[in-house]
Amino acid sequence: MSAQNSTIQGIFVPNIVPYDAKGRIDEDELRRIIRWLGDKGVTGFYPNGSMGEFIRLSYEERKRVLKIVAEQAGGRPILAGAAEPNVELVLEMCRYCADLGCRAVSITGPYYYKLTQESIEAYFRELAAKSPIDIVVYNIPVFANEISLPVLERLAMDCPRIVGTKDTSKDMGRFQQTLHTIKRQRPDFSVLIGWEELLCTGLFMGADGGTLSSAGVVPEVVMSLYQAARSNDWDKARRIQFELLDLFSLMVGAPNFPEGFRTGYELRGFQAGHARFPLSPAEEDLITAMRSKLACVLTDCGFREAAGECASGKPGTPPMNVDAIVQAVLRNIEAAQTR
Amino acid sequence: MSAQNSTIQGIFVPNIVPYDAKGRIDEDELRRIIRWLGDKGVTGFYPNGSMGEFIRLSYEERKRVLKIVAEQAGGRPILAGAAEPNVELVLEMCRYCADLGCRAVSITGPYYYKLTQESIEAYFRELAAKSPIDIVVYNIPVFANEISLPVLERLAMDCPRIVGTKDTSKDMGRFQQTLHTIKRQRPDFSVLIGWEELLCTGLFMGADGGTLSSAGVVPEVVMSLYQAARSNDWDKARRIQFELLDLFSLMVGAPNFPEGFRTGYELRGFQAGHARFPLSPAEEDLITAMRSKLACVLTDCGFREAAGECASGKPGTPPMNVDAIVQAVLRNIEAAQTR
Amino acid sequence: MSAQNSTIQGIFVPNIVPYDAKGRIDEDELRRIIRWLGDKGVTGFYPNGSMGEFIRLSYEERKRVLKIVAEQAGGRPILAGAAEPNVELVLEMCRYCADLGCRAVSITGPYYYKLTQESIEAYFRELAAKSPIDIVVYNIPVFANEISLPVLERLAMDCPRIVGTKDTSKDMGRFQQTLHTIKRQRPDFSVLIGWEELLCTGLFMGADGGTLSSAGVVPEVVMSLYQAARSNDWDKARRIQFELLDLFSLMVGAPNFPEGFRTGYELRGFQAGHARFPLSPAEEDLITAMRSKLACVLTDCGFREAAGECASGKPGTPPMNVDAIVQAVLRNIEAAQTR
Amino acid sequence: MSAQNSTIQGIFVPNIVPYDAKGRIDEDELRRIIRWLGDKGVTGFYPNGSMGEFIRLSYEERKRVLKIVAEQAGGRPILAGAAEPNVELVLEMCRYCADLGCRAVSITGPYYYKLTQESIEAYFRELAAKSPIDIVVYNIPVFANEISLPVLERLAMDCPRIVGTKDTSKDMGRFQQTLHTIKRQRPDFSVLIGWEELLCTGLFMGADGGTLSSAGVVPEVVMSLYQAARSNDWDKARRIQFELLDLFSLMVGAPNFPEGFRTGYELRGFQAGHARFPLSPAEEDLITAMRSKLACVLTDCGFREAAGECASGKPGTPPMNVDAIVQAVLRNIEAAQTR
Repeated sequence: MSAQNSTIQGIFVPNIVPYDAKGRIDEDELRRIIRWLGDKGVTGFYPNGSMGEFIRLSYEERKRVLKIVAEQAGGRPILAGAAEPNVELVLEMCRYCADLGCRAVSITGPYYYKLTQESIEAYFRELAAKSPIDIVVYNIPVFANEISLPVLERLAMDCPRIVGTKDTSKDMGRFQQTLHTIKRQRPDFSVLIGWEELLCTGLFMGADGGTLSSAGVVPEVVMSLYQAARSNDWDKARRIQFELLDLFSLMVGAPNFPEGFRTGYELRGFQAGHARFPLSPAEEDLITAMRSKLACVLTDCGFREAAGECASGKPGTPPMNVDAIVQAVLRNIEAAQTR
Repeated sequence: MSAQNSTIQGIFVPNIVPYDAKGRIDEDELRRIIRWLGDKGVTGFYPNGSMGEFIRLSYEERKRVLKIVAEQAGGRPILAGAAEPNVELVLEMCRYCADLGCRAVSITGPYYYKLTQESIEAYFRELAAKSPIDIVVYNIPVFANEISLPVLERLAMDCPRIVGTKDTSKDMGRFQQTLHTIKRQRPDFSVLIGWEELLCTGLFMGADGGTLSSAGVVPEVVMSLYQAARSNDWDKARRIQFELLDLFSLMVGAPNFPEGFRTGYELRGFQAGHARFPLSPAEEDLITAMRSKLACVLTDCGFREAAGECASGKPGTPPMNVDAIVQAVLRNIEAAQTR
Repeated sequence: MSAQNSTIQGIFVPNIVPYDAKGRIDEDELRRIIRWLGDKGVTGFYPNGSMGEFIRLSYEERKRVLKIVAEQAGGRPILAGAAEPNVELVLEMCRYCADLGCRAVSITGPYYYKLTQESIEAYFRELAAKSPIDIVVYNIPVFANEISLPVLERLAMDCPRIVGTKDTSKDMGRFQQTLHTIKRQRPDFSVLIGWEELLCTGLFMGADGGTLSSAGVVPEVVMSLYQAARSNDWDKARRIQFELLDLFSLMVGAPNFPEGFRTGYELRGFQAGHARFPLSPAEEDLITAMRSKLACVLTDCGFREAAGECASGKPGTPPMNVDAIVQAVLRNIEAAQTR
Repeated sequence: MSAQNSTIQGIFVPNIVPYDAKGRIDEDELRRIIRWLGDKGVTGFYPNGSMGEFIRLSYEERKRVLKIVAEQAGGRPILAGAAEPNVELVLEMCRYCADLGCRAVSITGPYYYKLTQESIEAYFRELAAKSPIDIVVYNIPVFANEISLPVLERLAMDCPRIVGTKDTSKDMGRFQQTLHTIKRQRPDFSVLIGWEELLCTGLFMGADGGTLSSAGVVPEVVMSLYQAARSNDWDKARRIQFELLDLFSLMVGAPNFPEGFRTGYELRGFQAGHARFPLSPAEEDLITAMRSKLACVLTDCGFREAAGECASGKPGTPPMNVDAIVQAVLRNIEAAQTR
C-alpha cells in the first residue's frame, strides 16, 4: 500500500466559494484563500462540500473549483465533494477527481427524495464497485438522507474503495459507535468528525481528524486544537474547544448557512462576495450585527486584522453580550430548521 | 387579460421519464406517453417535477424533456418544473419555458440547505420580479423546504407573476386555509392539490384542480373524478376517490419513488425502463410483488391490458389481500421516511 | 344489540374544566356548562380528554368530573376519557365509567415513553379483553404515541369491545384510509373526527361524527355544520366550515392549549377560571389580544353576548385583521410544537 | 453553606421498581437492590425517574418508593423525581421529599401537551419560588417538552433553588454549551449527564457526574469509569466507556424501556418481576434473545453470576455476534421512536 493510500488523517478545510460583483466565482480570491490556508498549515482541502455550496453551482463550476483548488494545494491532499445528481454523473466526477490527483471523493447520502436504507446501501455499493478513486461516506442527515450505522458498517467491511466516513450528524453517540463497531474491525478506516462542537471529544475518543468549516476562518485555532490532541495535551485541547464554541456558534448561527462563514472570511481579509441566495433585509441586519460581534471575538483570540470592526473598539474587553447574541442566532437557526 | 392568462385549472400530469436500455431518456416512448395522455383528455402536462426526477437529470436533459413534451402537447397547457440550483439558472430555465410557450413554471422551495422563511420569501420575490413567465409556488415539505402559508399569502398579494400554488404537503388543514386566506382575497389565484388522497376533498372545498402522479397511469380514473366533481356529482366523485386510494397506495408505497408509478406505466403498455437509482434485491422483489397486485387492481378497474399479469388470473375476483399489501408497502415507505 | 350498543354517532363535546379562585374544580360552573350544551342540542359529552386536562387532574378529580357530567347529561351519551397511567388503573376507571352508565371510554395511545406498535397493540388487546365497557381508540400523535392504521385495523377486526376510533392526527389521508380499510369491513365501527379543520371533509367522506373542542364554545356553529352534512346540504356545510376555521384558529392558536378555548367559554358567559399551568406575561398579553379578536368574530357570528368585548365596538365591521392575528398565533403554536 | 448544599456531584442511580407476582411493588426486593447498590459504592439514588416508571405508578406508590429508598440509602444523597401532573402536586411532592431529607428533586419539562418555552420557564420559576427543596432541571426531550438552553440559563442565573441540570438529550453540543454558558458563570451549578454514551466525554469536558440507568445493573463498571475520570486516567476511562457501550446498547435497545434494564437486574441476581406494560409475544422473544447475549457480555466483564445464562456457556469466548444483536435492537428502537 502506497503512502497515498494510508488512512486519511488530519484537518481538511471545507472551502468556501468567493463570488465577484457579477456573482461569478472569484477565481483569484479562491486561489488566495487556498494558498493562505496552506501557509497556515492545514492538512488538506475539501472543495464542493456543503460549505462550498456545491448544490448552487453548475456542474462546470464544480469542476472549475476543483481544478483551482488542486492547482493551489501545493501537494496537500484533497478530499473532493462528488455528490452529483445521478450515478453516472457521480462516476464522471470521480474520474475527474482521480485525474486531478485528489486523495479521495466524499459523497453524501442522496438528497431530495427520501430513500430506504437498502437503496442507499445499493447506491454506495455501485459507486464503490465502479469508482477509480477512494470514497469517503459523508453522513449529514440535516440536509441529505441519513446513512445508518449498520449500512455504513457493511459498506466498510465489504468495499475496499470505501476508506472512511465524515460524520456531521452532531450525534456523539453515533460517532463513538462508529469508532467502536467499524474502526475496531478495520483500523485503517478513517473516521472524521464534521461538526465543530464535537472536535475535541471526537479526537479524544479516537477520530482520525475532521473537516470543519471553521478551519477556513480560524485555521490557527483549529490546528492548535488538533495538535494539542495529537500530543495528548487534553487540558489545552479542551480549553481551545470552549473558545472555538463561541466562534462557531456565531458563524453557524447566522442566517443562511454558509453566510456566517463568508463573513468570517471577510474579517480575515478576503473578498468573499455576496451570497448566491437572496437574504431578506432583516437577515442582512442580523449578519451585520453578528459581524461586529465576531470581529470582537476574533480580536480577543488575537486576530488583530478584525479589530477595526469590533464595535467596542476595545479588544480585550470582556465579550459581555456574546452569549445573548449566540442564543439569538441559535434560536434563529433552530426556528429555520423546524419551520 | 388573455385566455392564456386566466386561472390555471384542471388536471396536470406530472410526467415520468422513460429510460432506454443504456439509461438515456427514451424520447420516442416519452412522446408516445404524452400523446396517449392527450388522447385520454388530461388537461395539461407537468414535466420536470418530482415524478419526472428533475433532480436526477442533467440541466440539458431537463431542457430536452421540456422540448419533447411541448412538441407533443397538442396545444394543452404546460406547467413546467423549474427548480434549478440557483437564481440565475432558475431564471434561465424560466426564459426557456417562456420561449416554448409553457403556461407557467412551478418552483419548489429550495432543497438541501435549511432556510428561514424570510429567505424563502426573498427568493420567490426575486424570481417573481425577474421571471418572464407566470410562477406556481410548489410546496412539498417532505422533499424541500416548506413554504409557510403566511409567506405564500404575502407573495400572492404582492406578486402578479405568482399565479398559483401546488400543495403536496398532505395537510388538508393547510389546503383549506390556503383557499380561505388567499383565494378569498384573490379569486384568480390557482390552488392545486398535489396529493391523490386529498383530490376529492380538495375539489370539494374549492380547489382549481390538481397535479397527480396517478393521472399518468390511470388518466381515465382521475379525469372521471375531476369531471364528477365539476358537475357536483359528489357521490360519484367520492366513490372514485376510494378506488383511487388503492391504486395510489400501491404505487406510492412501492420502494424508491417514483418506481411504483414506473411499474404502473408498464402495466398500461409502455416501456418505462429501469430506474436511474439502484434498487436492492429485496426492493426488486417488493416491486415485483406489488406489480402483480397492481395488475389485479387495474384489471378490476377495467383496464384489461393489465389482466395478463394479475397473478390470480381472474379479474373480478375480490382483491382479498390488497389491504395487506397496501399496509406492507405503507409500512415500508413510513420506515424509509424516518430511518 | 340494544340501542345503547349501536354505532356511536354525532357530535361529542370535549368538556373544559372550570376552576375556582383557589384552583379547585368549579363544580357549579361545570354543571352549568353541561346543561347549557345539552340545551344547545349537542349529541353527547366527552369529559377527561385533552381539552379536559385529564393529565393535570388527580385521579380523584377525574372521577369527580365524570360524576358531575353524568349527573347533568340528561340522558345524552358520554364518551369518557380513561387514559390512566397503567393497565390496572385504566380498567378501574373503565369499571367506574360503566357503573356511571357511560356509552364508552376513549383511550389514547400511551404517552411519555415511546413504544413500539407491537406493544401498543398488546396494550389495547389486553384492555379490550378485560374492559366492562366499549372502547374508542383515540389517536392523537402530537401528544401521545401514534396508533398506526394497521394496528387499528387488527384491533377493529378482532376485538368486539373496540367499537370506534377518534382521530386527531390532522391527517385526512389517514382518516380516509380508516374509513376505507376498517369501516368497509365493519360498518358498525364508529369513525370520529377530532380536528375541526377536517370536520366538513370528514363527514363528507363518511365519518360518523366528531369530538370537537369548538363545539363547547360555539355549539350552534358545529351542530349546524353537522346537521347540514347529515341532510346533504354540502354548500351550507362548506360555508360553515370556513367560518369555523377562523374561530378555531384563534382558539387553538392561543398559547398553552386549552387556554384559548377557556377564553371562548368566558366570552360565552361562563367563569372558566385561571389555567392550572402558569402563563408568562407575554402569553397573558397574547391571550388578551386574542380575546378581543375572538369577541369580534363571535359577534359577527351572531353571538351578541361577546359584543361588549369586541375592541372595535362595532359588530358587523369587516374583521380586517383577523388573518394577521390568526397567522401570528399559528406561528406561535408552530414554534411551540417544534422548539 | 452547609455540606448538604454543596454542588451535586457523582453517580446517582435511577432506580428500577421491582414488581411481585401480583404486579405490586416488591418492597423487599427494592430494599435489597438499594442496599446492594450502596455496598457497591454508588454516590446516591434517583427514584421516580423515567427508569423508575414514575408515570406508571400511582401517586401513593411514588411516595412509597421514595420512603423505601430513603430508609435504605444509608446516608447517601437522594435526587428524587417529582414531575407530578400539576404545580400543586409537584409542590406537595417537594415538601414530602424535603421531609424525607432528600438532597434535591428532579423535575422534567411538562409532558403530553406541547408548551412554549415561555410557559416552561414560567413553570420552573413558580416551582423555584415555592419549593422547600433544591431543584434539578431534567431535560429529556424524547419523552417530555424540551427545556431550551436559554431558558435553562435564565433559570440558573435567577433562581437559587435551581441548583443543577440533568441532561438526557443525547446532544453533546448542548451539553458543552451548558457547561460553557452556565457553569462558567455559576460554578456551583451541577451539570449531570443522563445518557451513558456521553458519560466519558461529558466528564472529560467538565460534568459533575451523572445519572445513568446502567449504574443500577453494573455499578462496578460505571463507578470505575467515574473514578478513572476523577483521577485523570483518561485512557482507562475511555476503555471502560467502550465496554459500557455494549452493555448499554443491549439494555436500552431492548423493546419497551425499561424492560432491558429489568433483565439486567435479573442477571445480577434480583427478582425484578414482570413489566407493568404488556409485551407482545415477538417482543418477549426479543427480550429472551437479548437476555442471553447480555449474560455473555456481563460474564465477559467478570460478573460470574450471569455465566449460567450465557448461551455459549463459555465466558471468555469472543462475543462474536454482539454487534449484530446490538444493531438489531438499535433498529428496533429506532423504528419504535419513529413509527
